[in-house]
Amino acid sequence: MRYFPDSLMRLLTELQKLPGVGPKTAQRLAFHLLKEPAEDARRLGAAIGTIHEKLTNCSICGSITELHDDPCRICEHPQRDHKVICVVEDADDVSIFERTGTYTGMYHVLGGLLSALNHVRPEDLRIPELVNRLGDGEVTEVIFALSPSVEGSATVTYMLQHLTPHDIRVTQIAYGVPIGSDLDYVDDVTLSQALEARNEVT
Amino acid sequence: MRYFPDSLMRLLTELQKLPGVGPKTAQRLAFHLLKEPAEDARRLGAAIGTIHEKLTNCSICGSITELHDDPCRICEHPQRDHKVICVVEDADDVSIFERTGTYTGMYHVLGGLLSALNHVRPEDLRIPELVNRLGDGEVTEVIFALSPSVEGSATVTYMLQHLTPHDIRVTQIAYGVPIGSDLDYVDDVTLSQALEARNEVT
Repeated sequence: MRYFPDSLMRLLTELQKLPGVGPKTAQRLAFHLLKEPAEDARRLGAAIGTIHEKLTNCSICGSITELHDDPCRICEHPQRDHKVICVVEDADDVSIFERTGTYTGMYHVLGGLLSALNHVRPEDLRIPELVNRLGDGEVTEVIFALSPSVEGSATVTYMLQHLTPHDIRVTQIAYGVPIGSDLDYVDDVTLSQALEARNEVT
Repeated sequence: MRYFPDSLMRLLTELQKLPGVGPKTAQRLAFHLLKEPAEDARRLGAAIGTIHEKLTNCSICGSITELHDDPCRICEHPQRDHKVICVVEDADDVSIFERTGTYTGMYHVLGGLLSALNHVRPEDLRIPELVNRLGDGEVTEVIFALSPSVEGSATVTYMLQHLTPHDIRVTQIAYGVPIGSDLDYVDDVTLSQALEARNEVT
């Protein structure tokens, strides 16, 4: 027995391809769209359908930018510190650091982390592009801001050999107990890591 | 500080109008769409954008149907029982009953429940359309399948006065302990209701 007309079935199928959207959520979203004015559905449909035509990856750092705005606003910003590059896994990580409002340097999107399990090899990452940016000697520091996972560590270790020939400082963000958290709920690995990476109290 | 290019911001704004989609989910969906092939985004965008042009409410029962398929397949089905009408709140409730595969009668979508709080008055519901369907004397039973809430009961009570002049049986689905549930976890109101509506064991 078919429960839905064809057009609705097609919409449900497409919606279910989104991450975290199962049959129930898809149905809720579809009926919501049907209840709201047609203009809303048209606007959402257009925003989704044209997103690939309007956006691209910045040719320098790899973050998301408007097609007519490449290199991106961060790479082109005259007030930002062009001497520091923060290396992140994905384009959406850029927004996480931008949100803090405290980082004023450049970014470099790797496009993934080395992973034997997921078949991600060095040539799949934007490593040559990073090395290229170090060529003119303007950059003085590269900060790794990758996830504290096996893949993250492997990626940093692998990339070090490409960075050491250049006369730059290579750092990574501090891993430890999150600010505002309760020690009772912090996992053992994080605690051990935080103990090991302890600092002088000044 | 702006974190995203304009086109991406527009997409995030539109996505956040969907029920249950906050800033984080919107961002996850948007970056998923950007990572997947452009064809996927175009297909989803088209399915969403054209949904109002392709679907309509059945002119008889009010459920969702293709524009070129009105009255809907259920209302037009020769094998279904045209003498019984199941009254539901919304168009998506039809699919819930169709999924069971045991109901073979007709439906009538009210389009809401009476509610002083949400300013839903009798004239906002498809009550005259239901009374109209009873006119030719073919229908012998009307089953109310509304949510067991204050609004649901109020709607049934109000509608009874419109149905009693017709010589039909008026019933409502059984409310009680769900099949397969553990009595420990059933709330008190449901238990009291189940006790009161007890049946003879035959």
